[in-house]
Amino acid sequence: MISFESDYTEGAHPEVLEAIIKTNLETLVSYGNDKYSEAAKEKIKAACGTPEADVYFLTGGTQTNKIVISSLLKSYEGVVSADTGHVAAHEAGAIEFSGHKVLTVPHDNGKVRAEDVDALVSKFYADESHEHMVFPGMVYISHPTEYGTLYTLDELTRLSDICKKWALPLYIDGARLGYGIMSSNTDVTLRDIARLSDVFYIGGTKVGTLCGEAVVFTKGNMPKYFATIVKQNGAMLAKGRIIGVQFDALFTDSLYERIGAHGIEMANKLRALFISKGIPFHIDSPTNQQFVILDDSFAARLREKVKFGTWEALTDGKSAYRFVTSWATKAEDIDALAKLI
Amino acid sequence: MISFESDYTEGAHPEVLEAIIKTNLETLVSYGNDKYSEAAKEKIKAACGTPEADVYFLTGGTQTNKIVISSLLKSYEGVVSADTGHVAAHEAGAIEFSGHKVLTVPHDNGKVRAEDVDALVSKFYADESHEHMVFPGMVYISHPTEYGTLYTLDELTRLSDICKKWALPLYIDGARLGYGIMSSNTDVTLRDIARLSDVFYIGGTKVGTLCGEAVVFTKGNMPKYFATIVKQNGAMLAKGRIIGVQFDALFTDSLYERIGAHGIEMANKLRALFISKGIPFHIDSPTNQQFVILDDSFAARLREKVKFGTWEALTDGKSAYRFVTSWATKAEDIDALAKLI
Amino acid sequence: MISFESDYTEGAHPEVLEAIIKTNLETLVSYGNDKYSEAAKEKIKAACGTPEADVYFLTGGTQTNKIVISSLLKSYEGVVSADTGHVAAHEAGAIEFSGHKVLTVPHDNGKVRAEDVDALVSKFYADESHEHMVFPGMVYISHPTEYGTLYTLDELTRLSDICKKWALPLYIDGARLGYGIMSSNTDVTLRDIARLSDVFYIGGTKVGTLCGEAVVFTKGNMPKYFATIVKQNGAMLAKGRIIGVQFDALFTDSLYERIGAHGIEMANKLRALFISKGIPFHIDSPTNQQFVILDDSFAARLREKVKFGTWEALTDGKSAYRFVTSWATKAEDIDALAKLI
Amino acid sequence: MISFESDYTEGAHPEVLEAIIKTNLETLVSYGNDKYSEAAKEKIKAACGTPEADVYFLTGGTQTNKIVISSLLKSYEGVVSADTGHVAAHEAGAIEFSGHKVLTVPHDNGKVRAEDVDALVSKFYADESHEHMVFPGMVYISHPTEYGTLYTLDELTRLSDICKKWALPLYIDGARLGYGIMSSNTDVTLRDIARLSDVFYIGGTKVGTLCGEAVVFTKGNMPKYFATIVKQNGAMLAKGRIIGVQFDALFTDSLYERIGAHGIEMANKLRALFISKGIPFHIDSPTNQQFVILDDSFAARLREKVKFGTWEALTDGKSAYRFVTSWATKAEDIDALAKLI
Repeated sequence: MISFESDYTEGAHPEVLEAIIKTNLETLVSYGNDKYSEAAKEKIKAACGTPEADVYFLTGGTQTNKIVISSLLKSYEGVVSADTGHVAAHEAGAIEFSGHKVLTVPHDNGKVRAEDVDALVSKFYADESHEHMVFPGMVYISHPTEYGTLYTLDELTRLSDICKKWALPLYIDGARLGYGIMSSNTDVTLRDIARLSDVFYIGGTKVGTLCGEAVVFTKGNMPKYFATIVKQNGAMLAKGRIIGVQFDALFTDSLYERIGAHGIEMANKLRALFISKGIPFHIDSPTNQQFVILDDSFAARLREKVKFGTWEALTDGKSAYRFVTSWATKAEDIDALAKLI
Repeated sequence: MISFESDYTEGAHPEVLEAIIKTNLETLVSYGNDKYSEAAKEKIKAACGTPEADVYFLTGGTQTNKIVISSLLKSYEGVVSADTGHVAAHEAGAIEFSGHKVLTVPHDNGKVRAEDVDALVSKFYADESHEHMVFPGMVYISHPTEYGTLYTLDELTRLSDICKKWALPLYIDGARLGYGIMSSNTDVTLRDIARLSDVFYIGGTKVGTLCGEAVVFTKGNMPKYFATIVKQNGAMLAKGRIIGVQFDALFTDSLYERIGAHGIEMANKLRALFISKGIPFHIDSPTNQQFVILDDSFAARLREKVKFGTWEALTDGKSAYRFVTSWATKAEDIDALAKLI
Repeated sequence: MISFESDYTEGAHPEVLEAIIKTNLETLVSYGNDKYSEAAKEKIKAACGTPEADVYFLTGGTQTNKIVISSLLKSYEGVVSADTGHVAAHEAGAIEFSGHKVLTVPHDNGKVRAEDVDALVSKFYADESHEHMVFPGMVYISHPTEYGTLYTLDELTRLSDICKKWALPLYIDGARLGYGIMSSNTDVTLRDIARLSDVFYIGGTKVGTLCGEAVVFTKGNMPKYFATIVKQNGAMLAKGRIIGVQFDALFTDSLYERIGAHGIEMANKLRALFISKGIPFHIDSPTNQQFVILDDSFAARLREKVKFGTWEALTDGKSAYRFVTSWATKAEDIDALAKLI
Repeated sequence: MISFESDYTEGAHPEVLEAIIKTNLETLVSYGNDKYSEAAKEKIKAACGTPEADVYFLTGGTQTNKIVISSLLKSYEGVVSADTGHVAAHEAGAIEFSGHKVLTVPHDNGKVRAEDVDALVSKFYADESHEHMVFPGMVYISHPTEYGTLYTLDELTRLSDICKKWALPLYIDGARLGYGIMSSNTDVTLRDIARLSDVFYIGGTKVGTLCGEAVVFTKGNMPKYFATIVKQNGAMLAKGRIIGVQFDALFTDSLYERIGAHGIEMANKLRALFISKGIPFHIDSPTNQQFVILDDSFAARLREKVKFGTWEALTDGKSAYRFVTSWATKAEDIDALAKLI
């Protein structure tokens, strides 16, 4: 059965796996203080063009969002997010569980509009009783978004400017960042992400690793004793090397970009297929998630041969469905799909 | 440089790594619902002799302790631990960070005495104002302990009985359980651990995996919606398979026991070496951690060639030092050490 | 200067104050276990028609909401509220600070519609990935609402039925309950509130006491060791008597009803005044908060003589303003206001 | 029945009650921003000799300890306390419930020794793995202590110096401060307390008010948006005036000192009675709590006529018992007691 279900249904990219194998028997210091972790951090800082940055490796996306957000906020602050943001909708309340409210603004194709943040914060401070309310304390976005969409450089710059205006750290969730910066239709680079945010993470899990995300505090602004914070959150790995080794591989010979490019190439091929078959799109996504509208009866039949996700029920016996590509998608898979549609 | 620094300085046991490699490109469902995770759970339940148990895979020890303890306690309850317990001393306050006090009893060679638990709980309920205090809500021990020591079957049975008497769940931290049940000097088996506890975990990280611990709720007593609790703690892996695959390997062909046995064989060889050289022991440990007393000046010279840990400063220019073996320790390492002492 | 600013700008109703004075030098047991607290509980249970209820006294509204909600929810659950609900908007994130998300539904004149709760919960359980989301765990409403509006008996019954259908406790915030049950335009009694909810609180602070709210767990469903939970929340008063004595007074000779009736009589008089002057209403409230639309320039002049709140800026140089009555409002205040309009 | 059970078994001191009565019908702004609260703050700052201080009123002792400690600590820090400290033993884990460990040192007659704090912190930073442990983040003491004992000016100065050395805020719980500074046997004044601590609180509940404690951030070091922190902790009173009015009375005409002096006079009389009767002391306390050793059989008989507390069971059918005086204790009570012994 071919699968377009998600970008985390296979193990590690072969070059990443090779690095794990090669270093497996080396005796290394623990807790991520090993030489591979150090090398990976240096390579990431170089790729981001931020020599002053602090880099820290964590295991998964929700964990990263929770620890980054809760360690940067004061107790009385919340994080501003699109109502469709991962932290708002799909993390089982991990942010609230850490004591903080998610303050939502309506999404625009999955994105947060700079003007909505400006309005929310203006209105907050204009309210006489704002000391009885949750202070907006930082802004969370993802790039690509939950809808596979991308900020333009102009949008991101304006959002970054509004954040600076209100002294709110801008945090970018880059779970699928590789597929964002390698999109055929973007003017935003990794360096732009690093330059315009205060902290972001480079997703590993969905871009070729077994696990692991690289948090980049772009201005050397990692909270003091962050390792202890990570530990008390239950997120420190004894064998921290396993993430360091994988990111060292990702940032060697541009593997991260090559993975992103492959996922995008496959997504573009998939997109062309849908267009050629006259299948309408539910969302216009330039990244590795493609959202199309299918008759439910047709989708049910197709699912006997192909795995893909249900996104949202529509009317008239139709629904939006999600097809995802990744480093592991093969051109043959799409050719096979073509024959089934 | 040879190393006896800890049991988490190498990657995965070759058979574990092989399982990761072999399954790497398989398309599997995510979040630990894959077939390898399911198989591993069945094998663990069989090995424990507890077909009714619930098994859940988590990533590391502190994470496991934090989630198990906080999900079993009521908000007004604390966990009873030896003052030397890992949760009391070396988890950066992860338990308190989850809202719960660690109620300590003095350790007996790293162990909790049944009578001390009984006395603590009796005294608590006898206090007229106990509703103004933290209720003892469960008991935490580790086997082996922080001191490498082991409970006898009698001690464990008495502790379990006292826990039943007060309706306190007994939780056993098995970070190094493999080296405990395979000790040359124990009458406690994996089945005893499963039978006498309410929940325990089988440590993977220190016994051959890259990461991962298997929590066993021995009486089918896993809290409802535990996956959601895990998620809100930031501990759910998208590629949950990576722990399932590793535990599937550990519980195939008795690998877990073979790893434990090797670590113990090496520890016994190390122990014999220390005895033959007249080096005194600081703690009498039957497991893979050996604690000896060395002159600090000698230790400093030895460290030019060998890595090992400092345990505790003593008097007269001496300290206690810790030497640890694992699945990765080679007999040649000990032979090399012999030449240096 | 006359004031319609809020219902908590004076001290205690004279009969309540008298009770404090009268009992002041009596030696009483502490922590709310005194005879006045016990008597007050019995009177409240009788007034509610719920002999099986548990009653507990707390100090203020946000404290009560926080403790009741967090003690009834599981860690992975959130509370459903109108987006205008006090817990959603004006408690500085106290609910999230306790670890729980507030799940909002759009308000209908400040009220939660039964069908919206039903839809939210249905949609939640229909979502395949709901274990990655916050479970709806209880429903919070206030009566009167933030908008001064009231549920009809039919609305409340339907909401209660939907809550039962989904096994969600229904919690009613009665900060201004006295003004609700004594409205000239309601078919909901205190007994209905007690019968249709699982837990509610009878507000004291805004209805005649210096401080204090009476939580009623209507089905004898107070969480075990609730006093300890209160203590760990920092909410236990050493001299718990001070709330018991006040509620004992409130529930003697129908004082609670008399206070409510007076506030309503004053509100009706105020309402008649606005109508007679042709001043339009922003919200149609049958309780002690009246919301009218005024020209901002007129409001500014009026404020030289009268205190009242700004509710919301409208267009064309107009805003909605709030005038509140209470047990302390005097008919002369409204006569004086009449001369100024 | 006469009572020496505790110092919170009566209502308010008559002069405090008079202030409540006198201001009861005044229309005042809410949330503690009224003129009486402001006046009280000024009087407290003057009495403390700290014009730069920030003062905030809270309701009770555990609430105050929890909010002050949790708002000053970083997430990875704990508070150092004597093992007998109120926060360590008798607050139902409120500190841990806020996420922080209480790091205990052995008490010396209820007191924390400067050298023990120095040793604990030195040892912490000397430990190579201290980033895996809870950082000592502040020091908590009470004056008088749980044992009724008092720090000497020299002890307090040395403790303050050690705290400065390690940059740890020193926090003094003054639940019974009035009885401490008015002891016949102390060289520590209110100004010393204010000068040597970073934050402390002046207890109201046990020294003449119905409720209320005044937190003094002695160096103008109140955390930013403290009111919002208080609100999210559920500790903000709508009618904040009720604490302000009471403290305004306490700090008018030296009432706070007069109350303390009366409690001490009564305690000294009680002490003289015990001495005259040859009753031995369990603890040598110079404040309003007196601890004596009685035969349990005698104590049981005495309790038919007198209320007092059991402190601790001793051997040989004896126990330590606690007799407490306060502003409400009358000389006749002690004369009556004398006849019964």
